[in-house]
Order: sequence, then C-alpha cells, then structure tokens
Amino acid sequence: MTDDLATYAHLDRDRTRRRGYPEAVYCAHKTAEQVAGIAAALRDSADGVTLFTRAGDEHARAILATLPGAFHDPAAGLLAWPPRPPRPTGERVVVVAAGTSDLPVAREAALTAQYLGRTTDLIVDVGVAGLHRILGHVDTLRRARAVVVVAGMDGALPGVVAGLIAAPVIAVPTSVGYGAAFEGLAALLTMLNACAPGVAVVNIDNGYGAGHLAAQITAP
Amino acid sequence: MTDDLATYAHLDRDRTRRRGYPEAVYCAHKTAEQVAGIAAALRDSADGVTLFTRAGDEHARAILATLPGAFHDPAAGLLAWPPRPPRPTGERVVVVAAGTSDLPVAREAALTAQYLGRTTDLIVDVGVAGLHRILGHVDTLRRARAVVVVAGMDGALPGVVAGLIAAPVIAVPTSVGYGAAFEGLAALLTMLNACAPGVAVVNIDNGYGAGHLAAQITAP
Amino acid sequence: MTDDLATYAHLDRDRTRRRGYPEAVYCAHKTAEQVAGIAAALRDSADGVTLFTRAGDEHARAILATLPGAFHDPAAGLLAWPPRPPRPTGERVVVVAAGTSDLPVAREAALTAQYLGRTTDLIVDVGVAGLHRILGHVDTLRRARAVVVVAGMDGALPGVVAGLIAAPVIAVPTSVGYGAAFEGLAALLTMLNACAPGVAVVNIDNGYGAGHLAAQITAP
Amino acid sequence: MTDDLATYAHLDRDRTRRRGYPEAVYCAHKTAEQVAGIAAALRDSADGVTLFTRAGDEHARAILATLPGAFHDPAAGLLAWPPRPPRPTGERVVVVAAGTSDLPVAREAALTAQYLGRTTDLIVDVGVAGLHRILGHVDTLRRARAVVVVAGMDGALPGVVAGLIAAPVIAVPTSVGYGAAFEGLAALLTMLNACAPGVAVVNIDNGYGAGHLAAQITAP
Amino acid sequence: MTDDLATYAHLDRDRTRRRGYPEAVYCAHKTAEQVAGIAAALRDSADGVTLFTRAGDEHARAILATLPGAFHDPAAGLLAWPPRPPRPTGERVVVVAAGTSDLPVAREAALTAQYLGRTTDLIVDVGVAGLHRILGHVDTLRRARAVVVVAGMDGALPGVVAGLIAAPVIAVPTSVGYGAAFEGLAALLTMLNACAPGVAVVNIDNGYGAGHLAAQITAP
Amino acid sequence: MTDDLATYAHLDRDRTRRRGYPEAVYCAHKTAEQVAGIAAALRDSADGVTLFTRAGDEHARAILATLPGAFHDPAAGLLAWPPRPPRPTGERVVVVAAGTSDLPVAREAALTAQYLGRTTDLIVDVGVAGLHRILGHVDTLRRARAVVVVAGMDGALPGVVAGLIAAPVIAVPTSVGYGAAFEGLAALLTMLNACAPGVAVVNIDNGYGAGHLAAQITAP
Amino acid sequence: MTDDLATYAHLDRDRTRRRGYPEAVYCAHKTAEQVAGIAAALRDSADGVTLFTRAGDEHARAILATLPGAFHDPAAGLLAWPPRPPRPTGERVVVVAAGTSDLPVAREAALTAQYLGRTTDLIVDVGVAGLHRILGHVDTLRRARAVVVVAGMDGALPGVVAGLIAAPVIAVPTSVGYGAAFEGLAALLTMLNACAPGVAVVNIDNGYGAGHLAAQITAP
Amino acid sequence: MTDDLATYAHLDRDRTRRRGYPEAVYCAHKTAEQVAGIAAALRDSADGVTLFTRAGDEHARAILATLPGAFHDPAAGLLAWPPRPPRPTGERVVVVAAGTSDLPVAREAALTAQYLGRTTDLIVDVGVAGLHRILGHVDTLRRARAVVVVAGMDGALPGVVAGLIAAPVIAVPTSVGYGAAFEGLAALLTMLNACAPGVAVVNIDNGYGAGHLAAQITAP
Ligand SMILES: Nc1ncnc2c1ncn2[C@@H]1O[C@H](COP(=O)(O)O)[C@@H](O)[C@H]1O
Ligand SMILES: Nc1ncnc2c1ncn2[C@@H]1O[C@H](COP(=O)(O)O)[C@@H](O)[C@H]1O
Ligand SMILES: Nc1ncnc2c1ncn2[C@@H]1O[C@H](COP(=O)(O)O)[C@@H](O)[C@H]1O
Ligand SMILES: Nc1ncnc2c1ncn2[C@@H]1O[C@H](COP(=O)(O)O)[C@@H](O)[C@H]1O
Ligand SMILES: [Mg+2]
Ligand SMILES: [Mg+2]
Ligand SMILES: [Mg+2]
Ligand SMILES: [Mg+2]
Ligand SMILES: [Mg+2]
Ligand SMILES: [Mg+2]
Ligand SMILES: [Mg+2]
Ligand SMILES: [Mg+2]
Repeated sequence: MTDDLATYAHLDRDRTRRRGYPEAVYCAHKTAEQVAGIAAALRDSADGVTLFTRAGDEHARAILATLPGAFHDPAAGLLAWPPRPPRPTGERVVVVAAGTSDLPVAREAALTAQYLGRTTDLIVDVGVAGLHRILGHVDTLRRARAVVVVAGMDGALPGVVAGLIAAPVIAVPTSVGYGAAFEGLAALLTMLNACAPGVAVVNIDNGYGAGHLAAQITAP
Repeated sequence: MTDDLATYAHLDRDRTRRRGYPEAVYCAHKTAEQVAGIAAALRDSADGVTLFTRAGDEHARAILATLPGAFHDPAAGLLAWPPRPPRPTGERVVVVAAGTSDLPVAREAALTAQYLGRTTDLIVDVGVAGLHRILGHVDTLRRARAVVVVAGMDGALPGVVAGLIAAPVIAVPTSVGYGAAFEGLAALLTMLNACAPGVAVVNIDNGYGAGHLAAQITAP
Repeated sequence: MTDDLATYAHLDRDRTRRRGYPEAVYCAHKTAEQVAGIAAALRDSADGVTLFTRAGDEHARAILATLPGAFHDPAAGLLAWPPRPPRPTGERVVVVAAGTSDLPVAREAALTAQYLGRTTDLIVDVGVAGLHRILGHVDTLRRARAVVVVAGMDGALPGVVAGLIAAPVIAVPTSVGYGAAFEGLAALLTMLNACAPGVAVVNIDNGYGAGHLAAQITAP
Repeated sequence: MTDDLATYAHLDRDRTRRRGYPEAVYCAHKTAEQVAGIAAALRDSADGVTLFTRAGDEHARAILATLPGAFHDPAAGLLAWPPRPPRPTGERVVVVAAGTSDLPVAREAALTAQYLGRTTDLIVDVGVAGLHRILGHVDTLRRARAVVVVAGMDGALPGVVAGLIAAPVIAVPTSVGYGAAFEGLAALLTMLNACAPGVAVVNIDNGYGAGHLAAQITAP
Repeated sequence: MTDDLATYAHLDRDRTRRRGYPEAVYCAHKTAEQVAGIAAALRDSADGVTLFTRAGDEHARAILATLPGAFHDPAAGLLAWPPRPPRPTGERVVVVAAGTSDLPVAREAALTAQYLGRTTDLIVDVGVAGLHRILGHVDTLRRARAVVVVAGMDGALPGVVAGLIAAPVIAVPTSVGYGAAFEGLAALLTMLNACAPGVAVVNIDNGYGAGHLAAQITAP
Repeated sequence: MTDDLATYAHLDRDRTRRRGYPEAVYCAHKTAEQVAGIAAALRDSADGVTLFTRAGDEHARAILATLPGAFHDPAAGLLAWPPRPPRPTGERVVVVAAGTSDLPVAREAALTAQYLGRTTDLIVDVGVAGLHRILGHVDTLRRARAVVVVAGMDGALPGVVAGLIAAPVIAVPTSVGYGAAFEGLAALLTMLNACAPGVAVVNIDNGYGAGHLAAQITAP
Repeated sequence: MTDDLATYAHLDRDRTRRRGYPEAVYCAHKTAEQVAGIAAALRDSADGVTLFTRAGDEHARAILATLPGAFHDPAAGLLAWPPRPPRPTGERVVVVAAGTSDLPVAREAALTAQYLGRTTDLIVDVGVAGLHRILGHVDTLRRARAVVVVAGMDGALPGVVAGLIAAPVIAVPTSVGYGAAFEGLAALLTMLNACAPGVAVVNIDNGYGAGHLAAQITAP
Repeated sequence: MTDDLATYAHLDRDRTRRRGYPEAVYCAHKTAEQVAGIAAALRDSADGVTLFTRAGDEHARAILATLPGAFHDPAAGLLAWPPRPPRPTGERVVVVAAGTSDLPVAREAALTAQYLGRTTDLIVDVGVAGLHRILGHVDTLRRARAVVVVAGMDGALPGVVAGLIAAPVIAVPTSVGYGAAFEGLAALLTMLNACAPGVAVVNIDNGYGAGHLAAQITAP
C-alpha cells in the first residue's frame, strides 16, 4: 500500500458545513501509518477540533509524532487536535458512570462533549446496588439539558435516572461484566427496554457517539 | 393412545418423602385426557396438595370435572386440590410485581408458596420508573425471609430490591414487553447480571418455580 | 381478580412533577378491565394528557366506554385523553418513515410528540433505495431540532439522515420485513452501528419512546 | 486519572447496615491502581470482611502490597481482608462441583459463604456421567440448608441434586466446555429449565454470587 | 400448479437399493394435494413401507383417501403404507420419553424403528427429577443395542442414560417447555454437551430421524 | 388515514431510468387499501411491468379489483401488471428447488426473472439426499448464465451445484424445516459458508430478490 | 490446592464395568498438576486403555513425565496409556475429513475408535465442492458399519454421505471457517438439519465423542 | 503426520475443467507445512493461476520458499502463483470499500477478480455518513458489469449503491466495528435485508468469494 492519502481515505471535509461538527477518525481497524497520514492531512485544516477515537498505543504514538502536543487520554483511547477544547457554549451535559469500571467509556463521552463545545460534569460509581448514591445527585442531574448514563452488567441505571428527571437520557452499555453479560449485550437489551421513556441507546462502549449526541442536543 | 395411566405417566409418588413437597402437574404440553387421568390418579392420594400449573381452559375443565371444587385461578393458569391451602408454617414470603402486566406470574408464585404452606404478601406495580413506589414498601420487604420479584421489559427491579434488604431475592423474568424484550430474554439477562449480590433467577414466566423455591427457603 | 385499582395498579401520579410529562398506559399485556379501571382513575386527573399505547380493539372499546370522545388512532394503537393536544411550545420535531409499512410506528411517534406539546411534520416512504426522495426533503429536515427516523428491513435510513443534518436523530427500528430481518433485530443492529454519529436508538416499534424523547429534546 | 478515590469510586459504606454484608470489590475491569486505592480506603473500615473478587495477578499484588497478610486464593481469584473468616453462625452450606474443572468457581462460592459467616462443605467431581458418585453423598447434601451446585458443559447436575433433597439449590453454570457449550450458555439454559423445582440460577462462573446467596438463605 | 407429479416432486426411487430404507414423505410444508399425488405414485411401489411424517389433519385425510386403510397415529403425525410393519429382524431398540409431554415424539421414533423392521420398547415419564424411575429400568435399557432418549426442558436424561449402559444413545430434544427452553434449543445444547460419551443428537422433535438411525444401528 | 396517495407512499418513478427495472410493491405489511391505492397510481404508468410481491388473499383481491386481469400466482404470492411478461432477451436463468416444499419461493424467483425479461427453466425436488437427481440435470445447469438454487433445512444444495458449473449461483434459503432449522437460519448460514466459491445469498424466502438479481446478471 | 487426589477428582472406576469403556480424562480446563495426579492414579489401573483428550503442551509434558512412553498425537491433543491399542474386534469404522483443516478432529475420532478396539480407515479432503472425490470412495464407505464425517464451514458433507450408504453417520462439526461459520455453529446446524435421515451429531470439534460412539455402534 | 500429500490433501485438479477457475488454497486452518506441500504439488500444474487465501506470516514464508517470486499482498493475506495476472477479458468489475478499515477485504476481492482475468477498479472510503462521496462516483459505478461493495459497521452502503445502478451488487460484510457490530453480523443482516433488490451477500470478510463471483458474472 502506498502512503498516498487518496489510496486509503476520502476525508469528509464538508461535514462541519453540513452538520456543525467535523469528522472524527476511528483508529481501531486502521494501521498506524494510515492514521498518521490522516493526521497530517488534517493538521492545517481550520475546521474546528479533530478527535481520534479508539486509539491504541501505536496509533497514539503515530498521531503524537505528527501532531506534537495533541491532547491524549490513554484510558479513553482519545486524542484531540488542537489540544485545547473550544470555549463552552450551549447547555450543560452530565455524564454518569455506574461503576468504576465504566470510567474509560464515561470519560470518552465527557471529553467528546467538551471538545464539541459543551460544559460537562462527571459522576462516578453510583450504581443501583446502593440507590442512595444516585439519589444524592438528583440536583446535579436536574441541572443538565442532556444526561449520558454509562453502565455495564445489568445496565439498569439509565432507566432509573430517566425516571427522576425531565432531560433526555443517552444510555451507553459497556462491555464490563462476564458470563451472561455477553460483552455488553445484556446491558444493551436492558437499556432498550427501559421502562421509563426518555432513554435512547448507542452502541456498546460508544462513549464518542454518546458525547456527540449530547453535544447536539445541548447545542446553542 | 389408551387411557391407561401407565402408558403415558409414571407419577413420582415418592417425592414428598424425599423433598417435602409433592410433584406438580405441568399441563401445557399434555392433552386434557392425560391431565384428567393424572388428576384421577392423584384424587385419593394423601400426599398433601397437588398443583396443576399452566392449565389452559380445556385442561381446567377436565380437571374440574375430575376434581369438582378444586381451586382455580384462570389468570395464573393454576389449579389446586384439595382446594384449601394448608395452615401456614415457616417464615414470610413477599412477592413483588413490577407492573400490572406481571400480575399473572406473580399470582402463580404467591399461590404456589401459599399452597406449599407459607404466608405471602403481594405488592403490585412498583417498577423502577417511579422509584418512590418500591421505596414506600421497604418495611414490608424487610419483614420477609424470601422475596420474589417478578418483572418484564428491562427486568431491573430485582437488583434494586436486593440492594435494599438482607433477604434473598428470587427473580422471575416475564415475557411482558415487545421488540428487543425478546419474550423475556432481556429481563432474564438483566437479572443474571444484577449488580447487587443476592439475586438468583428462575425461568421466564416461571412463577411456580419461584414460589416453590421461596417456600423451601422459608420452610420451618 | 377484584376490580379494586389497588390490587393491580399503583399509578405514578408524581411523574409530571418529576419529569414534566405524565405516565402513559401500556395496554398490550393488560386485560381490558384493568385498562378501563386505570382510565376511570385518570379521568379526573388534571395532570395533562394521558396516552394509552399499544391498545388493541378490545382495549380501545373499554377506554372509549370509560372516556367517551377520547382520541383514537387505530393503526398506531394510540388513544389520548383529553382528546385535544396542548397548544404547541418548544421547537419542531420531524418524523420520517422509510416505507409505507413503517407508517403506524411513525404515526405513534408523531402523535406522542404532538400530545406532549410539540409541532411535528411527517415525511413518508423515502427509503434509501431511491435516494432522491430523502434528498428532496433536506430543507424540512434542517428545520427540525430533533428528527425521528423510523425504518424496518435494513434500517439504513437513520444513518443517512444523520449524515445530512446537525440535529440529533432518534432511530426507531420496526418489525417490518421477513426472514433475516428477525422481527426488527437487523434494523436495530444497523442503527446501533450507524457510521454517522448523532444517532440513538429506541426499542423495536417503539414509536412512543421516540416521540417522548423528541419532545424532551425540543422542550422549551 | 488522579489517585484521588472520589474520582473513580463511591464506596457503598452503608451496605452492611442495609443488607448485613459489606460491598465486595469486583476487580476484573479495574486498574491495579484503582483496586489498591479502594483497598487502602477499606483498610481501617470496621465493617466486617471485605472480599476482592476476580482478581488477576496484578490486582492481587497491588492488594497484598496495601493489605499485607490478606488471604489469597489464586485459583478462585479471591482475596479477603482481614484474612480470617468470622466464627460461623447460621446453618450449613454444601457446595458441589460437577467436575475437577469447576473447582475454581466452587471454591469461590465456598470461600464467600465462609467469609460471610457460614460453615461450608465442598464435594468435588460427582457429575451425572457416573451417578453413583452423587448418590453416595446424599446424606451430606441433606444436612445442608442450602446447596450450591457448580457445573459446566451440560449443566445437568443441579436438577438431579434438587430432585433428591428438600433444601434450595443455587445453580452456577461455568464456562467449562467447548463448542456448543458456548462459554457456559448451554449449562445456563439447562439450569433455567431444570425439571425439578427448587433450582435458581446465578450468572456464569459467578461463584461469589452463589456463595453470597447461600449465606443469606442460611443466615441465623 | 398442475397435478402432474413431475412439476413438484422427483421421488428418490433408488433409495432402498442404496440405503436399505425407502424415502419417507415429509408433509409439513407441502399442500394436501401434493401429498396425495405422492401417495398415489407410491401406492403400487413394491419398495417396502412408506412413511408419511409430520402430517396434519388435512394431510392425513388426503393420504387416507388415496391409501384407504393406511396406518395413522395422529399424535405422532405419522402414517404408514402398507399399514402393517415388516416382521422384525436385527436387534432391539428401546425408546425413552422423559415426560408425558414428550410422548408424541417418542412414539414417532418407536413407530419409525418398528416400520423399518425392528422390535421396540417404549418407557415413559422417567425424567431426572425422580431418578429412581429411570434406575428401575436399567435392565430393559441394557437389553437394547440402541437407545433413543427423548426429552424437552433441560434435556438432561440422555446423558444420565448414557452413563448407565454400553449401547449408543440417540438423543432427541423436544420443544416441550417454555421461556428459556427456547423451543427445544436448551435441550439440544444440553445433549450436545452431555458429559457421558456415547450420545449423538438429532434435530429438535425429530423422532423420525432418531428411529431411522436406531434401525440402522441395530440392522441385522 | 386518508386515501390520498401522498400520505402513505412516495413511488420511485425514476427507478427504471436509473436501474432498468421498475419498483416492485411489497405488500406484506401494507393494508389492502394502501396496496389498491398504489395499484391505481401505477395503472397507467408506461414504465414496464409492475410486480406485487408477498400478497395475501386480501391484497390480491384489492389488486385484482383495481387491475382486472392481472396475473396472479397465489402460491408465490405474486401479481403482475400488465399480465403478460415481456418478450425474453439476454441469457438463460435456471431455477432449482431442492424440495417440493421450496416450490413457492422457487416460482417467485422464476416468475420475477421472467417478468423482468428472461427465459427461465425450473428444476424441482433434487436435494442432496439423492445426488443422482441433481447430477442428472448438469447439462441444463450448464446452459444457464445464472442459476438460482432454493433450499430449506440444511441448505446444502447451492454449494453442490456451484461446484459443478461455471455460472454464478444465487442461493435462496427457505424457512422450510423445523426445530434447529430456525425458520431458515440454518440454511442461510450453510449457504454463506458454502465451500465452493461462486455462491451469493439473498434473504430467507426472498425469491423476488433472487429472480431480480438473476435477471440483472443475464441482462443483454 | 493440595495435591491429594480426593480434593479435586473422584475417578469413575466403575465405568468399564457399566459401559465397557473406561473414563477418559478431559484436560482442557484442568491444571497440569491435576492431570498429572490423575495420570498417576490411573497408572496401575488394569482397566483397559486411558485416553487423555484436549491436552495442550503443558498437559502433555506432565502426562509423559508420569507415564513415560505414552502415545501422543499433538495435532489431535490426544494421549493414550498404555501406548498400544488393543487388538481390533467388532466391525469397521470409516472416518472422513471434508478438508485438510478438519484433519486434527478426524484423527482424534479415528484414534479414539482404534484405542477402544476398532479397525478404522481415514479419508481426507473430499468436500462437496468437488463431488467426484467422495464419490470415488463409495466402496470404502460401504464397507463400514459406522461412518464418522468431520466437516467445518458449511458442514454439508455428512448429509451427502448419508444419502449414499446404509450405515449410520456420526457428524462432527468443526470450528474451521470464519465469519458466519460462527466457530462451528453453521456446520452444526447444517448437520442437525441434514435432509438424509441417518445422521446424528456430536459437539463441535468433538472427535473423541464421535470415535467413542462409533466404537459402541460397531462393538462385537 | 507425514509430509506425503495424500495423507492430508486431495486436490480438486478437475476444477478448471468443470468451472473455468482452479481451486484456491485456504490457508487459515492449515499448518505451514501442509500449505508448502500443496504449493509444491501445484508448482508445475498448468492449470492457470493458483491463489492462496487467508495466509498469515508463517504461511506466506512457507509458500514463498516453495514458489519464489510469488505475488504477495500481506494486508489481504493473499498470494498468487504464477505472480502475474492473466491478460484481462470479459467486462469490468468495480470494488468499493466503505471505509479505510475495509480496505484489506476490498483488496482481496479486487485482486481475486484480477487474477481470474478481469479489469478492476477500486474506490475507497465513501461510506454513507458523507453521501456526496459515493454520489461522486456514479459514473464509474455505471461502467461496471458487476460491483462489489465492502462495508463493516452498519453495512448500509451496498443497498445505497444498488439503488443507483443497473448492475448486480455483491455485498461483503466486514468484521470492522465493535460492540453490537458483533464481528460483522450486523453488517451481514443489513445487507441481507437491503431494500433495493439486486444485492447478494457473501460471508463476512470473504473478499475472495466476492471477487470470484464478480469474475464469473463478468466472464466473457
Ligand atoms: N464476582 C462478582 N460478580 C458479580 N458482582 C460482583 C462480584 N464482585 C463484586 N460484585 C459486586 O459488584 C459491585 C461493585 O462494582 P464496581 O462499582 O464496579 O466496583 C458491588 O455491588 C459488588 O457487590
Ligand atoms: N409450571 C411448571 N414449570 C416447571 N416445572 C413444572 C411446572 N409444573 C410442574 N412442574 C414439574 O414438572 C414435572 C412434571 O412433568 P411431566 O412428567 O411432564 O408431568 C414435575 O417434576 C413438576 O415438579
Ligand atoms: N478465503 C476463502 N473463503 C472461503 N472459501 C475458500 C477461501 N479460499 C479457498 N476457499 C475454498 O475452500 C476450499 C478449500 O478448502 P480445503 O480443502 O480446506 O483447502 C476450496 O474449495 C476453495 O475454493
Ligand atoms: N468511536 C467511534 N464510534 C463510532 N463511529 C465513529 C467513532 N469515531 C469515529 N467515528 C465515525 O466513523 C467514521 C469513520 O470511519 P472510517 O471511514 O472507517 O474512517 C466517521 O464518519 C466518524 O464520524
Ligand atoms: Mg462500585
Ligand atoms: Mg405501572
Ligand atoms: Mg416505498
Ligand atoms: Mg471427573
Ligand atoms: Mg412426569
Ligand atoms: Mg423430495
Ligand atoms: Mg481441500
Ligand atoms: Mg472514512
């Protein structure tokens, strides 16, 4: 494969005009060389912030070599260029992680919303096994215009949160759990069947998608 | 097929000795004639109460013709002979139905526990979309030595109940719901992945099994 | 079962205070008697509009007997009381149906948003097999603050719509199709994996949930 | 991520008061640093024994560095602090492993029940392919107030055990097997469909959950 | 569609020469007219007995009109022409039904083996919930050269039988059960994972296939 | 719903220009009124033949009332207007049905190819259980430029055919079978995994799609 | 874990008496120490040959250290002690591998039958994509009293073989393939739905089970 | 295992005569030694080009040692001998990759078609999230007689392409994606349910099969 960008990528440079947000680069199934080539092509684009998602160590090294000083959160597998998020506009996003183990995905969501221009809060480890924890945060939750709830295992938290507030809930199932959690399938089904209306679901572990949607809902 | 019992059934008449509870008759895949034949064979057995589960209209008619005056709850598909439950012993069972639609299964559970000798309470329509409802019953829940929680759709209630009490929770997923509820599969997976320990699960819509287990746990 | 409401339902009368929208009544797994009992209890409630969802013919008759003059859309299985939607506030919702067959679910979504107080548009039969159809509606789509896209079979339309606009897309898979459509599962998975960010998914055939979420996103 | 506990964990310190048993720490999807931070926070808690479940080698090292002398069973992936189980109360728990390969999960169950205050027996390698083996243990089984049965592959043992005794059976499917065992799914389904009533099921490989439930059932 | 046989069927008249047994007619997805046409074509064939499997009422009427006096077992959905089974040769087949509900499939297996020329015994309702029942039949089981075991729900019986005898076991899962029995899938998986070697499995409810295979194994 | 076409359908009148073949009308999830409305709108269109697929009795009656004299094959659920297929052009299509039960789907495929302008042959009941049957048709198969193979149950025939000829094979799984056929899923998977290259698969029971594709491959 | 055998294994020393064949040792989920302990316990048993199945490198080393000179086939993961198979009795077993890739499982089957006392033939790489290959072996196939057919991907070969011969066919699906082969699930379903009667199926990759069953069928 | 070819492979040397294209060697589940042995056997065959598919590094080394100078595309896992494709005949094939990540599979398809004698074009990264990209290639697409469309995640592109052109579309789902992409299952289902007729599907990641089929369709 040559290193000529056109042989492997056709960037959607029109996306900010159409949608208000630029294309992000999904790294997971690309080679480090491809990601570096895309990073180089985007370096001088004036089209707002570019996010690199699901970047492994090798991807990150290649991106940082091309865009020195880029923001990098290794746990979330996220890089951003330019490294500084825009000044926040619109309304507030709150991101909730049911357990400690859901934190990487929750951070991916919160950082995405932040880099797309929103103010975000992060609440951690407030799963339904100890209800008083989430109940202690109802005031914060009610200050949000959109709430992202990230949960693995039984995935029960988004429905409980939705039942407490007026704002829309974006539910993110995670692959946290084992056995009949089936890599996030159990949580996904739970969320799709949440008894409280006002819950919509994104792909398993898709913090990026949740943060993007929250930014759209809360846009000015 | 002849109507000679031995050609189609081999009753487990030893079960009460081994287990303390007699065999129940599962009607769903049997003909009305077979069920009537079994009912006749059990008529004069002194082996405690016999339950007929998952009985449709035709089954019920055949049983009532053989055992006039038998107890019959059509919604739960349950018959019992002799019709009167034994005087209660052991500790208290509480059965909780998340929604109105889960009531037939919840009644099957409560009646089973009652006919196996327990005192039972039934709490209805207290799903997690309106948390204050289940929170208003914590005192009743804490008086039980075993709690059966019946829920369809997201199946989130058993984990929430387990997080509030010391007693074991028997979770019963129901086939209530549509789409990605997959006839109770979603609720089943949720319950198997409940974050709060102390939850065990029986088959979808298996109120009989849950009531039986609750009776065993609370036996004197 | 007695006809005493408390034996089968515990209405969440607090929901409008907590969430801004009252509880809807899911009819599908309830008896007509139960639904009528709930309708009677809600008759004189001043708590905004009550929706009855997934109502079959028998449910509808029982509700209309209790609430004469209630609004009824048989195709969508929806009833509303009082029959007149509130005067619209907030921003505009657009509902898109990929095919003629998706219309009942799309109508459920549009009517729900309307009864929760929004202005809604409905665009029908613009699936991706003839792209010029949806492309001819881009201006209408861009006037919405939230777009609901309803599709069965391949479920490809929501991702295509999301790629064209700035507003959030709520995707509703339908059970339209056959064979490997697996009653909506194929469309559901497509939507969860939409390449364009900005898509969140509700349960298969869940027009109510989509309309509710759209109303929340576009609330004043 | 900083090492400040509040950024990643919100311990449920109220759990012993509510439930009688403290929260366990699920290690599998946490970093060693997070687990060590939680271990440090719990060190001086007077709230009974803390269990660390599904701990890999790195987790174990981090915990032992923080809590020197903690109990550690590497096969079961379990640590306990303080290292000595409480003096037993309540009734007896018997744990049965169908095969040698199910031993790690069976040990997790037995140790959990022991650390939550029960006397436990462990019976190993008595699967249904050689029935005389389990039949030779009926007396021991009948001395228990709760029996945990751990089995992979066909998962047939719990139903057979339940048919022999009066006590409740907690069935634990394991991921032992290959091919159509589907990582424990086959055993799980078998157990949910056990013909003998009196069987409830926990998640695949969830020895912790089974031991916890057994402790609750047999509590004084 | 015309009634000319060649437009819808191409009978495998060579099968007895190649295999020793003639082709059977699977009725389930054929029209009554097609089945009658095939019956007429086979009427005068000298090629041993023809079996018609999975025949509904309409199929049976059409076959009996064409082949008056044909053998018909409505429960098993089986017809045979000529009506009298051949004089038995080879070794003995024993068919075991775990429950009363499995009887139609067990009869289909036993009748098939009989019409293909074997002596068969049928043992009914000896599931593992009451082990003494199957243990009381070990002598009969040991007299067989092939044993067919038919079971629904947990499907545990074939593995238990295989552990007791030297002969091969053909396991037939049935669709008896509900919920997580998934129309026989649970029993199928159990049987594929039977811990005792010597078990092979046929399709769910496939009594015909099991009886055929048993006849082949026990052929002279 | 009004009977104004625009409220429920947006016909893709441009399709023949873009693709060479007009849009067909999928009837299965539409009301008879909607189908009749579409039929009326297409009556005077000069855009070649219109096919109505998956039409039930009610649909057929409504179409025939609107388009008297339309072609109708009830077994295949297919109608065509105008009733006479175009004069054939292009190369030959051969359609093969593995069993008699697969005939309705095979006819749907053959008729579709014919109405889109091709010469078609139909070979029936030549499944792999009697290999000599398909081997006897190799010459006919080799005369085709595209072969459609329709099979249920094990779905093995398309791979066998592909191994014998140079032309592409379009495989159509059918829902014929029971138990682990899972409504055509087994056949679908078999076909996707065919060892002989040169097989592509369409949806279960999708005779229309297969016939359409065959017409495209063999177009002049 | 101590190295005392009774803490981890309860050998079924009675099995040869009951079944005619001794228990084999499944190594896959056991530690090398456990396998070595079992090997030592069986060293001096006079109970015929012991097979060790699914042995990895570490298992093999531990067994060979305990039983020097044991037979070892690394590709099949099989060891046998004593190393020499018994003198053959009974009738002939033929094992067929559809592709080269299925050879390890086919060898496991053939060696198992051989160590249980049968004469076996092995035919390799005769899949249905080139039918002349299997057709060239019909004479050998007809000399067998039991045929084992091992196939991955589409799993079509067993049904084709069964259609050609009178002997029973034991089908072994393998995990060979990719994508929609789903680790052998596609082949498994194909085989369960084989159109030719006379096919029974064992677990995916279960060469041991197939060889055992073949030995039972062909026993003297 | 000896290195004698006949013990592990039976090459289908007749395939070019029957089908027009020689057998390819699937390397994935074979040992490097087996692949080398097959390569040696084919070295001097005059039967057109031999392709080696799904070759890992070790396979490639073994093939190149046997056939020095063979063509090798490591990303596609493909080798060809002799290294030079034949002079193109027939009509044009266009291969489309939805994303950069789908490129390896797309290259496998394009190279296969090329080595079987066709002219091919490759279009990359034109997924539906930015529709203008594929719309900009309609002219190229319309020049093809067969179009291969390769896509992961939502798999929506093939249906969109089919709606734009007259030529048949061969859809290749890829395992690109995560979570509910289920290793390509989501894309596979989408493609099977494509709303535009004229789409047929091959196995997940099966670029070889798609290229082969495209070559057959476009053969002279
Ligand atoms: N092995 C285990 N399986 C299932 N749940 C567990 C396990 N170990 C601990 N837990 C529970 O998981 C929760 C901790 O999750 P987290 O907040 O991620 O630490 C607590 O409620 C524990 O009781
Ligand atoms: N509703 C039920 N669900 C599950 N098992 C049941 C039910 N009712 C009865 N049983 C059990 O099913 C067995 C009877 O099955 P059968 O032999 O088919 O009559 C007995 O062991 C009963 O304990
Ligand atoms: N990548 C591939 N995917 C599917 N089938 C293939 C592939 N490569 C080769 N084949 C076919 O697989 C068969 C070879 O299988 P085997 O006998 O195991 O070598 C031949 O019929 C090939 O045409
Ligand atoms: N983490 C993510 N999850 C889902 N989609 C993403 C993610 N990151 C980027 N994308 C989208 O994936 C597409 C890029 O895929 P590709 O064409 O393979 O490079 C773009 O449209 C992105 O907006
Ligand atoms: Mg926690
Ligand atoms: Mg309610
Ligand atoms: Mg349309
Ligand atoms: Mg053992
Ligand atoms: Mg019974
Ligand atoms: Mg036939
Ligand atoms: Mg080969
Ligand atoms: Mg891209």
